[in-house]
Amino acid sequence: MTDLSANNPHGIVLVSGGMDSCVTAAIALNEGAAAFLHVDYSQRTEARERLAFHQIADYYKIPSFFRKVITLDYLRSICCSALTDDSIPVPKFEKLEEEGNGEIPITYVPFRNAHILCMAVSWAETIGARRIYIGAVAGDSAGYPDCRPEFYEAFNKLVEVGSKAGRSLKVAAPLIKMSKKEIVQKGRELNAPLHLTWSCYEQSEKACGRCDSCLRRLRAFQEAGVVDPIPYENI
Amino acid sequence: MTDLSANNPHGIVLVSGGMDSCVTAAIALNEGAAAFLHVDYSQRTEARERLAFHQIADYYKIPSFFRKVITLDYLRSICCSALTDDSIPVPKFEKLEEEGNGEIPITYVPFRNAHILCMAVSWAETIGARRIYIGAVAGDSAGYPDCRPEFYEAFNKLVEVGSKAGRSLKVAAPLIKMSKKEIVQKGRELNAPLHLTWSCYEQSEKACGRCDSCLRRLRAFQEAGVVDPIPYENI
Repeated sequence: MTDLSANNPHGIVLVSGGMDSCVTAAIALNEGAAAFLHVDYSQRTEARERLAFHQIADYYKIPSFFRKVITLDYLRSICCSALTDDSIPVPKFEKLEEEGNGEIPITYVPFRNAHILCMAVSWAETIGARRIYIGAVAGDSAGYPDCRPEFYEAFNKLVEVGSKAGRSLKVAAPLIKMSKKEIVQKGRELNAPLHLTWSCYEQSEKACGRCDSCLRRLRAFQEAGVVDPIPYENI
Repeated sequence: MTDLSANNPHGIVLVSGGMDSCVTAAIALNEGAAAFLHVDYSQRTEARERLAFHQIADYYKIPSFFRKVITLDYLRSICCSALTDDSIPVPKFEKLEEEGNGEIPITYVPFRNAHILCMAVSWAETIGARRIYIGAVAGDSAGYPDCRPEFYEAFNKLVEVGSKAGRSLKVAAPLIKMSKKEIVQKGRELNAPLHLTWSCYEQSEKACGRCDSCLRRLRAFQEAGVVDPIPYENI
């Protein structure tokens, strides 16, 4: 296990509180990462996500000085997205829509992952971390341009030329080529606390089970032949 | 002159309030840009810089809906720099130090320009702007890694692969290869309001005349054979 008292943690994990970031944290901790970063960008589910973040961090015994929550409230003031604007309803479906139609969904927050990675780079430069882990998934993400492998390649080039750390600091997206089913399997293999995660685009006692994010998650557990340990509203 | 009532301004200019961003604004307005973005990252001179920003925006008659100030206060909470931390004194010099020693100065704010450009990209995606102008200068900037031409090339690649706009949105750094002397000359040629700008790393009634930024500015005016129109403390 990582020496959490070390002054220079090997890496920073971006932990939203969802399933993908939880499994990414499990992978990162195996590789020696010690710091958890959560970003509040005024998403409508922030309170629920932040609870999940702290519960996952507690599970992994991350001390408070390696556990940071950053508020990025300006994104809400400059962008329109169903994830940050309460007046735009989150789309609900009976079943998953066809994938790969090339359209960018209304839940897209312009350039969000670039902002979040920039924060991680600034923090990494300050605490001397050498790796940033993000739970981006290309295949079955919903067409967000900042979830593609090319985006992370381009971001690493930016870090290489534009930071003090240069080539010694890298962004890793260990799930990028996995399917959601494989992520569930990896999480169980590593004993990741999937029961503490929150994926729903709404927040209440139970997940809605009908937004795009819930439907993808449910399908992944079903394909992996495992019962999703969190409670759902409509199931 | 630009049609400032247009719904989709052609471009966004990052206006800190310093000389370089003022000259960049003059160039950008000639090319049709209409929106001004200022970022408050809790730098110690923010109040003075913001005043300069509004005075320059007034000079160019930028309406309030194309004039945006974004607060990015988390940078102060995660980074150490003489520009954001009051406990670190800004270095003062009798004369300009040798350049090109390869060291990154204490005034470096880790990855600052990447954060600022990300905000501009998110705003550009929202208002449909196609160009982002930044007054970065490679040659006589003080060794900041995020002022190099390679940084802007890498950032444009990131925008291309990671934003909705893709290749139709570009970052332009029109001063990147200019000397400070040429910037003064360009500003005068375009009738830019250099008398409204603030470059000093401290803030008071008059510029200190002894920080790295003041010394570079003063030398530029001297080389251009022009009197700097702002008042200085020690001159």
